[in-house]
Amino acid sequence: MANKYVDISTLKYYLNDVHNLEELLQKKRFEDHDVESLNLFLDSIKDFSDKELFPFVKEMDETPATYKDGTVIVHKQVKTYMEKGAALGIIGATFDYKDGGMQLPQIITHAATYIQEAANNNLPGYTMLTHGSAELIVNFGNEKLKELYVPNMIAGKWQGTMCLTEPQAGSALSAITTKATKTDNDFYKISGQKIFISGGDYQYANNVVHLVLARIEGAPQGTKGISLFVVPKHRYTKDGFENNDVVTIADFQKLGQRGYATTHLGFGADDNCHGWLVGEENKGLGYMFLMMNSARISVGRGASAIATAAYQASLQYANERVQGKKLTNGSGEKTNNEQSLIIEHADVRRMLLSQKAITEGTLSMVFQASKYQDLMETATDKEQKEKYTLLLEILTPITKAYSSEAAIDSINNGVQVLGGYGFCTDFILQQYLRDVRIYSLYEGTTGIQSQDLLGRKVTMQNGKALTLLAVEITASIQKATKYKTLQKYAVDLGDRLKELNTIMQHLLSFAKEGNYERYLADANLFMEYMGIVTMSWLWLDIATKATADLENKNTDYSVAFYESKIHTMKFYYKYELTKTSTLKEILLDKDTLTINKSKDVFV
Amino acid sequence: MANKYVDISTLKYYLNDVHNLEELLQKKRFEDHDVESLNLFLDSIKDFSDKELFPFVKEMDETPATYKDGTVIVHKQVKTYMEKGAALGIIGATFDYKDGGMQLPQIITHAATYIQEAANNNLPGYTMLTHGSAELIVNFGNEKLKELYVPNMIAGKWQGTMCLTEPQAGSALSAITTKATKTDNDFYKISGQKIFISGGDYQYANNVVHLVLARIEGAPQGTKGISLFVVPKHRYTKDGFENNDVVTIADFQKLGQRGYATTHLGFGADDNCHGWLVGEENKGLGYMFLMMNSARISVGRGASAIATAAYQASLQYANERVQGKKLTNGSGEKTNNEQSLIIEHADVRRMLLSQKAITEGTLSMVFQASKYQDLMETATDKEQKEKYTLLLEILTPITKAYSSEAAIDSINNGVQVLGGYGFCTDFILQQYLRDVRIYSLYEGTTGIQSQDLLGRKVTMQNGKALTLLAVEITASIQKATKYKTLQKYAVDLGDRLKELNTIMQHLLSFAKEGNYERYLADANLFMEYMGIVTMSWLWLDIATKATADLENKNTDYSVAFYESKIHTMKFYYKYELTKTSTLKEILLDKDTLTINKSKDVFV
Repeated sequence: MANKYVDISTLKYYLNDVHNLEELLQKKRFEDHDVESLNLFLDSIKDFSDKELFPFVKEMDETPATYKDGTVIVHKQVKTYMEKGAALGIIGATFDYKDGGMQLPQIITHAATYIQEAANNNLPGYTMLTHGSAELIVNFGNEKLKELYVPNMIAGKWQGTMCLTEPQAGSALSAITTKATKTDNDFYKISGQKIFISGGDYQYANNVVHLVLARIEGAPQGTKGISLFVVPKHRYTKDGFENNDVVTIADFQKLGQRGYATTHLGFGADDNCHGWLVGEENKGLGYMFLMMNSARISVGRGASAIATAAYQASLQYANERVQGKKLTNGSGEKTNNEQSLIIEHADVRRMLLSQKAITEGTLSMVFQASKYQDLMETATDKEQKEKYTLLLEILTPITKAYSSEAAIDSINNGVQVLGGYGFCTDFILQQYLRDVRIYSLYEGTTGIQSQDLLGRKVTMQNGKALTLLAVEITASIQKATKYKTLQKYAVDLGDRLKELNTIMQHLLSFAKEGNYERYLADANLFMEYMGIVTMSWLWLDIATKATADLENKNTDYSVAFYESKIHTMKFYYKYELTKTSTLKEILLDKDTLTINKSKDVFV
Repeated sequence: MANKYVDISTLKYYLNDVHNLEELLQKKRFEDHDVESLNLFLDSIKDFSDKELFPFVKEMDETPATYKDGTVIVHKQVKTYMEKGAALGIIGATFDYKDGGMQLPQIITHAATYIQEAANNNLPGYTMLTHGSAELIVNFGNEKLKELYVPNMIAGKWQGTMCLTEPQAGSALSAITTKATKTDNDFYKISGQKIFISGGDYQYANNVVHLVLARIEGAPQGTKGISLFVVPKHRYTKDGFENNDVVTIADFQKLGQRGYATTHLGFGADDNCHGWLVGEENKGLGYMFLMMNSARISVGRGASAIATAAYQASLQYANERVQGKKLTNGSGEKTNNEQSLIIEHADVRRMLLSQKAITEGTLSMVFQASKYQDLMETATDKEQKEKYTLLLEILTPITKAYSSEAAIDSINNGVQVLGGYGFCTDFILQQYLRDVRIYSLYEGTTGIQSQDLLGRKVTMQNGKALTLLAVEITASIQKATKYKTLQKYAVDLGDRLKELNTIMQHLLSFAKEGNYERYLADANLFMEYMGIVTMSWLWLDIATKATADLENKNTDYSVAFYESKIHTMKFYYKYELTKTSTLKEILLDKDTLTINKSKDVFV
């Protein structure tokens, strides 16, 4: 088995140097932190991941979470992980001091979770979801709810969940039917079923705090009639706790991420399930979506992290496996006489470079998005706040969709590097390939992210978010242009960015006619275009920093390290940015082939 | 679970109408067959698959082949399948009457196996491999070997295998070390180990006939010193059978195709393993590769078949699942009020059409390749024989590599159509995604196929194979041009075909300098270009036939059926053929990024 799952040097270079952590730490909220202490925190997370996460990644896959006698049995490491993770402060890390947190920047918790996810993606969901649901209570719940629930959640004693999806509704939240009935007490009675609830129940959770979307009787139809409730598995009584009529109906058996419990829950089958309203009635979806946006960046991050572990595993294999003769590049014989390491074959290098370009680029994208979140949250100036809000809004679906789709391709290449062994369970690549497949489905499929990007984010405030993003990209292009060796790439990116205008004009002509179906029909391809342009922007930034470091004879990292970043940027531009040529052709094509009144086309 | 796994109407339309089976049946070898009887044969295969294959596809995945006490325990359906399959004649179907066969055209056995593989890809390998190894004996073995082994193999009583790969050599067959030592008897003593041997051992096989590549002591180094041997698990003695010192060391546990035994075998650990030479010494690799080329087409076919089953399953789901409101294409509200079937959403239609285009197109590619094989085998004229040999040679790696890679994408889309359910083991899509992953590794990875295509097939006889293929494509373009509605597509394909010249000139400049490494560095992208052009050619043929059928008011199929074929062709041209624009950019790019002397780029 591979023994390296993440490249900490690259992670720190992107965090500290490319994304300039120090600058962010000037904000008042972070005044107690400095670069050194935060890097030490990441080292402690790496140490924790080495000891408590990575050694169990294969075992947790082989002993999946399983439904038994009304609960879900998970691997015993879940218990250890929750306890030790909470002790490291990871659950409430970004919370205010007053709410039991450490006021860490978002970018730091993303870096920390990335390391854990690369080590073992079966585990971090348990703390992340507890964080997310505690955050909903902290932000929108009343003092009593905070007091009753948040401390035990931050301490890792109680699990938190998000309950959105229902069997009949899937991603269409406007169609949810879970019911909340007012009572004369401070609680509502909840009844309904939720599916795909991660971490929804397991034998070690003393209590599970469900954050449930439900419809109060008489509420308006659709998304404007949805409220948010705290629905614990065990509710407080005067004397302690009692069962709150939340039943675990089943555990979903899955292609991957099998150590992570995915449950089907029933609420109020005996008309005895109490729920406490969070915030105001009918505003639940808005609250949930503030968290959901963070969760979407986290999904992009998780996919990137698994792809990183896969890259490290295939890189290690390629550095050890001898097979095939290397082709020559002089005259004479076609191949050398000796068998060589497979990393010396151009095709293997192409696959590995593709993995490197995607994993490192998506990590940088996650950092970019979370930095915008930090800048938004700490902005004191209204205009700045709006700017970073919009940049975050437009980057969120891209980070989620691009990273999760590209991670599949990346790990697929990783499997191919191993040849037949990649298909065998003795090697971990096949597990990563299975694990990562959920990420383009989690928290809104790629289709939904793409509709969000083209249907909402690109058009909001007359296109202001897209304009702001273009300003950021253009600034990077200008910076890169100072270095002669980067000019070619800067020009290339500038051209592809300009072509976005042509594409948008073409597409908007449909929206202006009220033909939303046609406007959005190829939203996924538009997403891919935007994702590639965004990645190319971030790679240009990385190459610009590395070029500057080489010019300044910076010795923090080796010359080879800086050069490898520039080389990988060139690889991304040659093999990936060029894909926008095809995407442009398709997006500008006038034929409409996916909108048809009849089903006959599938005859 | 889905209840349809293959579209027999489409299969028959492509076989009988597009690829004109009747014309092929004019050949003397096939004089006893007619279209009707062969279509009835396919109906019987479908019936067999309905009853004996499809019902076990999930169960075989859930009870994988497992090593126990020196043998491999497989699902009991393997026994039934071998017996009933043999009774239907499928093992020796293409053999001469004199060798116990039915003299069926290759295209028919491909159609028959395609149906079975779509039903349950865990099973057909057992008969296919038995067919392949029996064919080696029939073609190259002496009369005694034929007599001793072939009848029991054709009868499905004895399993056959192909033993090429060794642990240290992988795909590099020149590096194999399994040893054959001459004795004073008619046999050699064999010693060595082979891995990844499909069907290598299981509890129901009365005997296993291994066709083993080994090196006779003193033979020339490399590929010119490899011989082929028949090495049975149990060898004949005067009184019956005795153990032949072939030991099953292990069974590989795999990502997919888990019901199909993949073994690790040891030969001659006790110096008591006898092997009988097939044909002449040191010519084994040549014999094996005649079969290997057929096997490569079969791999493309298997991938296409699994993708077909996945397409049918996701199509059925999309036709039943209600979710989300349809976007409008008039003015007013953005969406309709009612939730709709997901098949009405443009993005879902895009994914389904992509599945349809890939699965049907690759089926047609398999038919095209196998038709060339039939035409080659039945050609009486030398020039014709050479023509079809070359066309088959160039189409073989394309069929193998393109189909297996595209099938992954196709099934990946199928999973996405199901949303979160696609990730759950209650639905079969996740199984197909796992199963299909082996096809781009089987019988030479995509990298190896691509080196074969660009390094050998394209350059052989001064490019004659590529020229012949271009002639075929050009003939199709001319035929399509007669129909006004198809002209646009014919012109598009013609342009992309012409661009191949530019690409070849650019690449050949490296080969002429003796820089083979650079010449072949992007062979995979060249393969993708060729694969897409080939698919577009075959889709144009299909659309031309369907257009003619519509003009002629042919009533064999519905108008909607013919129109759907034309529509899918348009889809392929818009969404897939356009990918050659990007591929051209990359292939013509002057930068060399995947050839480097140092490993530092992966620092």
